[in-house]
Amino acid sequence: MAKEKLVKSITSMEEDFAKWYTDVCIKAELIDYASVKGCMIIRPYGYAIWENIQKNMDALFKQTGHENVYMPMFIPESLLQKEKDHVEGFAPEVAWVTHGGEEELEERLCVRPTSETLFCDHFKNIVHSYRDLPKLYNQWCSVVRWEKTTRPFLRSREFLWQEGHTLHATKEEAENETIKMLNIYAKFAEEYLAMPVVKGVKTEKERFAGAEDTYTIEALMHDGKALQSGTSHFFGDGFAKAFDITYTDKNNKPVYPFQTSWGTTTRLIGAVIMTHGDNSGLVLPPMIAPIQAVVVPIATHKEGVLDKANEVYARLNNVCRAKIDVSDQSPGWKFAEYEMKGVPVRIELGPKDIENNVCVAVRRDNGEKVVINLDELEVKIPELLKAVQQGLYDKALARRESMTYDAHNLDQMVDIAENKPGFIRAMWCGDRECEDKLKEVAGVTSRCIPFEQENLDGKCVCCGKPAKHMLYWGKAY
Amino acid sequence: MAKEKLVKSITSMEEDFAKWYTDVCIKAELIDYASVKGCMIIRPYGYAIWENIQKNMDALFKQTGHENVYMPMFIPESLLQKEKDHVEGFAPEVAWVTHGGEEELEERLCVRPTSETLFCDHFKNIVHSYRDLPKLYNQWCSVVRWEKTTRPFLRSREFLWQEGHTLHATKEEAENETIKMLNIYAKFAEEYLAMPVVKGVKTEKERFAGAEDTYTIEALMHDGKALQSGTSHFFGDGFAKAFDITYTDKNNKPVYPFQTSWGTTTRLIGAVIMTHGDNSGLVLPPMIAPIQAVVVPIATHKEGVLDKANEVYARLNNVCRAKIDVSDQSPGWKFAEYEMKGVPVRIELGPKDIENNVCVAVRRDNGEKVVINLDELEVKIPELLKAVQQGLYDKALARRESMTYDAHNLDQMVDIAENKPGFIRAMWCGDRECEDKLKEVAGVTSRCIPFEQENLDGKCVCCGKPAKHMLYWGKAY
Repeated sequence: MAKEKLVKSITSMEEDFAKWYTDVCIKAELIDYASVKGCMIIRPYGYAIWENIQKNMDALFKQTGHENVYMPMFIPESLLQKEKDHVEGFAPEVAWVTHGGEEELEERLCVRPTSETLFCDHFKNIVHSYRDLPKLYNQWCSVVRWEKTTRPFLRSREFLWQEGHTLHATKEEAENETIKMLNIYAKFAEEYLAMPVVKGVKTEKERFAGAEDTYTIEALMHDGKALQSGTSHFFGDGFAKAFDITYTDKNNKPVYPFQTSWGTTTRLIGAVIMTHGDNSGLVLPPMIAPIQAVVVPIATHKEGVLDKANEVYARLNNVCRAKIDVSDQSPGWKFAEYEMKGVPVRIELGPKDIENNVCVAVRRDNGEKVVINLDELEVKIPELLKAVQQGLYDKALARRESMTYDAHNLDQMVDIAENKPGFIRAMWCGDRECEDKLKEVAGVTSRCIPFEQENLDGKCVCCGKPAKHMLYWGKAY
Repeated sequence: MAKEKLVKSITSMEEDFAKWYTDVCIKAELIDYASVKGCMIIRPYGYAIWENIQKNMDALFKQTGHENVYMPMFIPESLLQKEKDHVEGFAPEVAWVTHGGEEELEERLCVRPTSETLFCDHFKNIVHSYRDLPKLYNQWCSVVRWEKTTRPFLRSREFLWQEGHTLHATKEEAENETIKMLNIYAKFAEEYLAMPVVKGVKTEKERFAGAEDTYTIEALMHDGKALQSGTSHFFGDGFAKAFDITYTDKNNKPVYPFQTSWGTTTRLIGAVIMTHGDNSGLVLPPMIAPIQAVVVPIATHKEGVLDKANEVYARLNNVCRAKIDVSDQSPGWKFAEYEMKGVPVRIELGPKDIENNVCVAVRRDNGEKVVINLDELEVKIPELLKAVQQGLYDKALARRESMTYDAHNLDQMVDIAENKPGFIRAMWCGDRECEDKLKEVAGVTSRCIPFEQENLDGKCVCCGKPAKHMLYWGKAY
């Protein structure tokens, strides 16, 4: 068959995980490389995944009273410098605009790496009284961080994200907001992305620049590396003081408000690839899949096949995001194509099936074939999609559990870090020195102090002194 | 009442239209000024309007087979320079990134003013065969043009927009696409924004940089100035040749494809303000209003009023985007506030109304009060919203017609341009010289050669020679 393209092949993940990952990004048509070094083009199929993430997450934000706004993409250098820790954290990795048209600017502008400083500047203008609080804002936009080494979705010089920025009258309210949004991220990761996460707080070393506390959700990828998948920061009143934001309380006294910010990015698409993907390509959770079910008619030259396939497609479209492929490629090519694209369910329909009033549904997650009576299509397919969604979560959770190890002393830690990819649970005394040493000798960083604590053995895995917390450690993206 | 804020007041449009406009932008809480000169902050109420525009327009794009993508925000200088006319048009007004972190870049990057060059670069990578065509792409993003004078929504250094970029096998197909998208813009302006537009083609002088033809929708503002509200460009194969994009046709021969692009921006919000607004503030068409109906309970201290108002609000929320204001501000303050914000329908509900099982609905567009039986709420309010939407369109159309004048010679043209704000219809010979002269002596520019032609008198309004077209002329934003 001259018309048939070669079935796309990718590197296996056992052979080279990094290569497998970029192969999937390219062959599933999620991205293309751009002329601009370190930036990527998000192609229609990749962007449709982002649209599904965005639509569903945005609904969760709005249900909890948040409003969307849009801030400028530029930050004057003097504004960026107002909060000392913040500028130290970000200045080394920002892109600078120095010229507008033919003229040199009086003051350099950085392309936003994050927008705390812009929100503070705005809050100062619009918040005067306790009646103006809280402000519960969010923004969907792109940000720029001038990274040296980049990878599609995981680390690129420009990426898409949402950044929430909220301002509250009391410390307690701001702390509650920080946790509330972390819980929304965890809910989203687990229910929409079918990706189990560990919720916890970062150590001081791993905190966001300028934050008093950084909370995180950490996921475990196929290769045993950890991926920070969403963070929520409590700022106390540090930014308010740096930007001189005050409001008059009910006693007519000027006081500083408390602030939070929280963000997730297109990195979530990378997380999905590395959590569910396999050697045939992408595997998408139905909740965010652009195409949930694809109809592939078999022996389309036989009378009635195309008509019936189109009828099945039209009916499917009422209950899920469906597609039909009537192109002149062979069924085998189509099977491989939609496997590569991670479509959760494939519907095969040939003359024999039509005779028997059935179709064959094939699950992408486990290859299972289910014969479905066409009369039950509208009931069975949504059920199957739910089963795929749950199946993906269960499989990811089981894998994470099988790849989570406990270490009781430094030797064990080094041994696990070297030989067993995954999360390592171990106690910690709370000293930065031990944290640094673990990085040095075992190559691991602290992922988080999980909310669910367990006293493994009472002593620090590094120095043996009494431990304060149980931590998750690992190698990270 | 110490708690009551002062009713917001704005400059009247007769006194100072420009000041009235910015007053509405600020007092209706659509925008705030930013520390970055020439940029604006789009506040929640303004952004919610944009979200409604975006959601509805995006649906129209998807219905016609377009897919969303995301391109990098940076364009390397060498890439921008590939199409000669294009770079000449845009280079003087772009912002340049010269440093990443501490290092100077090897090549300057401009922040995208528009993305033709990026799309061409990508098309070259992914289009090889006639089977790969057409590509029907769109992108929602922000762009930067380093303007000297700026005004909220109408002209700012950064603005939000959508840019469609499509690639076709034939010239005819690309031309059809250009017109199809112009028609979608016109439909959107008229049906969603209640704003009548003139559809036509730009003269060569007013064309987009690099285009063979630029089509436009032109609207008339309250003050008689024209506002270009959406454009659609046919590029021929000029960009394809400049970027060396070819595909192999069915005869296996390499040929150049044909290209289009089309865009609308947050300027549409400015158009809505200046088309429907009045001296009490914003007036929003229900189709894009963030709040379609606001419930203002009267005498809330009376027993049962708040409960009933909340019940009415809950019922309204099932049939439209509703809000209830139970704050301790006075009804008078609330009336003024939601008038300023342009909420299409206000629902007043007091003890007397409750006794009679009615509420009073007040239309923002004409002040009309309608007594509605509460049993009919779910039917009557959507009907009323439709009536407001239609009423706004009819009023705007009537005003445009009353402000459209015909000129038959240069003296008339100058007289109308000086004394009668509005559109001027006049014949044109097609020479650039006459177009330039009209700008010089009458201060008007050609808005478009409308699709609907009428031969007014056969001779050019400027030189008197035989005319080729009837044009719309005017002063423009």
